[in-house]
Amino acid sequence: CPPPGVLLLCHRPPAWGRAARQPPCLPLAPCRAFSNNKILVELDESSGVATMKFKSPPVNSLSLDFLTEFCISLEKLENNRACRGVIFTSAVPKIFSSGLDITEMCGKTTEHYAEFWRAVQEMWLRLYGSNMVTVAAVNGSSPAGGCLLALSCDYRIMVENPKFSIGLNEAQLGIVAPFWFKDTFVNVVGHRVAERSLQLGSLHPAPEAHKFGVVDELVPEEKLQEKAAAVMAQWLALPDHARQLTKSMMRKAVLDRLLAHREEDIQNFISFISKESIQKSLRMYMEMLKKKKS
Amino acid sequence: CPPPGVLLLCHRPPAWGRAARQPPCLPLAPCRAFSNNKILVELDESSGVATMKFKSPPVNSLSLDFLTEFCISLEKLENNRACRGVIFTSAVPKIFSSGLDITEMCGKTTEHYAEFWRAVQEMWLRLYGSNMVTVAAVNGSSPAGGCLLALSCDYRIMVENPKFSIGLNEAQLGIVAPFWFKDTFVNVVGHRVAERSLQLGSLHPAPEAHKFGVVDELVPEEKLQEKAAAVMAQWLALPDHARQLTKSMMRKAVLDRLLAHREEDIQNFISFISKESIQKSLRMYMEMLKKKKS
Amino acid sequence: CPPPGVLLLCHRPPAWGRAARQPPCLPLAPCRAFSNNKILVELDESSGVATMKFKSPPVNSLSLDFLTEFCISLEKLENNRACRGVIFTSAVPKIFSSGLDITEMCGKTTEHYAEFWRAVQEMWLRLYGSNMVTVAAVNGSSPAGGCLLALSCDYRIMVENPKFSIGLNEAQLGIVAPFWFKDTFVNVVGHRVAERSLQLGSLHPAPEAHKFGVVDELVPEEKLQEKAAAVMAQWLALPDHARQLTKSMMRKAVLDRLLAHREEDIQNFISFISKESIQKSLRMYMEMLKKKKS
Repeated sequence: CPPPGVLLLCHRPPAWGRAARQPPCLPLAPCRAFSNNKILVELDESSGVATMKFKSPPVNSLSLDFLTEFCISLEKLENNRACRGVIFTSAVPKIFSSGLDITEMCGKTTEHYAEFWRAVQEMWLRLYGSNMVTVAAVNGSSPAGGCLLALSCDYRIMVENPKFSIGLNEAQLGIVAPFWFKDTFVNVVGHRVAERSLQLGSLHPAPEAHKFGVVDELVPEEKLQEKAAAVMAQWLALPDHARQLTKSMMRKAVLDRLLAHREEDIQNFISFISKESIQKSLRMYMEMLKKKKS
Repeated sequence: CPPPGVLLLCHRPPAWGRAARQPPCLPLAPCRAFSNNKILVELDESSGVATMKFKSPPVNSLSLDFLTEFCISLEKLENNRACRGVIFTSAVPKIFSSGLDITEMCGKTTEHYAEFWRAVQEMWLRLYGSNMVTVAAVNGSSPAGGCLLALSCDYRIMVENPKFSIGLNEAQLGIVAPFWFKDTFVNVVGHRVAERSLQLGSLHPAPEAHKFGVVDELVPEEKLQEKAAAVMAQWLALPDHARQLTKSMMRKAVLDRLLAHREEDIQNFISFISKESIQKSLRMYMEMLKKKKS
Repeated sequence: CPPPGVLLLCHRPPAWGRAARQPPCLPLAPCRAFSNNKILVELDESSGVATMKFKSPPVNSLSLDFLTEFCISLEKLENNRACRGVIFTSAVPKIFSSGLDITEMCGKTTEHYAEFWRAVQEMWLRLYGSNMVTVAAVNGSSPAGGCLLALSCDYRIMVENPKFSIGLNEAQLGIVAPFWFKDTFVNVVGHRVAERSLQLGSLHPAPEAHKFGVVDELVPEEKLQEKAAAVMAQWLALPDHARQLTKSMMRKAVLDRLLAHREEDIQNFISFISKESIQKSLRMYMEMLKKKKS
């Protein structure tokens, strides 16, 4: 049995943040941006803050391509010493992210399902375990996998519009959130709220999401980016190394649980999703979505 | 080490509830009722909702007979495909249930104590692990084992009368709530509230119980059954299978803990309750109750 | 695998408190007091309540001497059948305790670091595992180790002055709270609040500390001792043995975790604190404190 988080004290001198060791900010310094197909990444080297903007219309669904870009972008930032924090937000109106892309789970090969599910796991492992400060600026609805993305950040700010909702609504679709979605949710809202919300597949309108602790703060839409930047500055005032070790101490047990059962989790997903009955109901669900759109 | 809840996704097609596959509701269809000595059970086959009404005056104490009836009734409903949810309430004014029947623990044989304690465990294992939606409509006070019964449901609605109280007050009687009472309570109210409430043996008046999360909602007495039915309908709008697997994922760890230590737990109870000092103080407690009544 | 808390019911008859078996209180009975250098201990034998007053100016820092006195005093009270509860408070204006004494960690031998860290562990093990009712009457600021001391009590009452703050602010100093500080904090405030507060090294002003559950209650300074006595009386109304077993059932898992890793935890502390880089930054921090004072 390994010692449960005996890190105790950090093993580097107090650093008061990397930024302090960077050249002073130039007020007019242009941001460096790199854009892929589905995510726009901007890094302000003077503040050390990157923004990842999801721009994959119509609903920022988490397709294999999106997840791959997400992981590559996050890894780039993680390895860039000029970057200390990331704000996640959407460039698509009214939606933060609609969650896992159902077309990736329908009529594909076993190999494809395995690749897709591994990418979903990878997204969560990298984000929940990130050394950077992560802030979700939730400017639209965020069901299922979109909610997981927000839950995996250090802090969640949501636009106070009650038309925007957020939640792990898998049960509404007849499916069950994986155990690591559940673990993440329990860490944020506690056992009672998580149990009820998961059983009901609740999509909480912003005010209710705030009341239950799903999000930490509500702001008017026009204040969202300003607020996210202010929160980020507050977190970046801390020395990176101590903050990182603290975060790891808090999240390690839940991260280790998926790492210990990762292949099993993939096999479970494949055997479930390959059933003809499930394929049929997913096709029906997609038909319904198409009709709704037109 | 077994995978911690890798169920991941449900293994049956989305079913949108068994009721949908039943014949259409007949508005005037009479309810089927079966009554035992201590519990009245009514099943409305059109809605799939059963009501279990405790009618064991004076205080619905959890005697061996009551517990046996409870388990048999619950099992019947569990195995009846026409039943998807159960509402628990009392037919006795001012009391939901007074908890474990002290006369079962006083002056009886070792075999009797073993049988009684196994029945208490069985009640909890069946109720906390039920596949059905379980709603407690708490229309009176609910100390100790009565509180456990409510805590083991999916949702708790209580009459807002501050004269009705609820709590695990074992410590007030000089005894300690078993670890699985404690686990259930921590899952509902969290560690700090559970620790204080258990140490103080608190009986929370309805408004305080609501504030601390012991119950989810308060209503005027005359609205209780209507509210319970509305909450039940909301839960039954979900497909059964996904909701059941989600519930199991949330509750499995705590259920498994008792299953792993069940015989030990019985032996502990017997060796405690058999002590002459405990027998003496239980007799004194019963004398006190008798005097209070007269 | 040992049974997880199968204590189930207490193994002594209901005792309604030791005090009841003591000679009746004499209204004018003088309190017994024993004072060391740094802590004033007063025991009122008629009520069974002791008060430990920290009087180690300027800031009641937890030096090796302080910790040693603390443990000896607590053990004396624990072994004194006339004592059933302890109130912890400060005799120094505006500060409850400033936490671990940095001079004990600077320029000393390996043996000294080991001795100091063992004393810190001992303080927590004895306090968090105490059989007595423990109430923190927080009448001043209480950062880091001072906050741990309060968190380890059964109940926390704080003066409502927003100039007084409390929190595990280790991350602000570039260090990481040990895992057992974290476990204690999570038990009190839950995972989300603990994660954010520890990452930010937050010092919560009294009103915020109350809002987040770090302290249970706020009172005006002049009402503090009266309120602490009233809360203590409420807890002492319970029979000791059942309350003690309940407390142990709630706290055992977290206590056992340090006991299982105690030597490792000490070695970790030594290897961290012995680094020249850490020594340098601690010296700089002490310089800063000196300048601030003058």
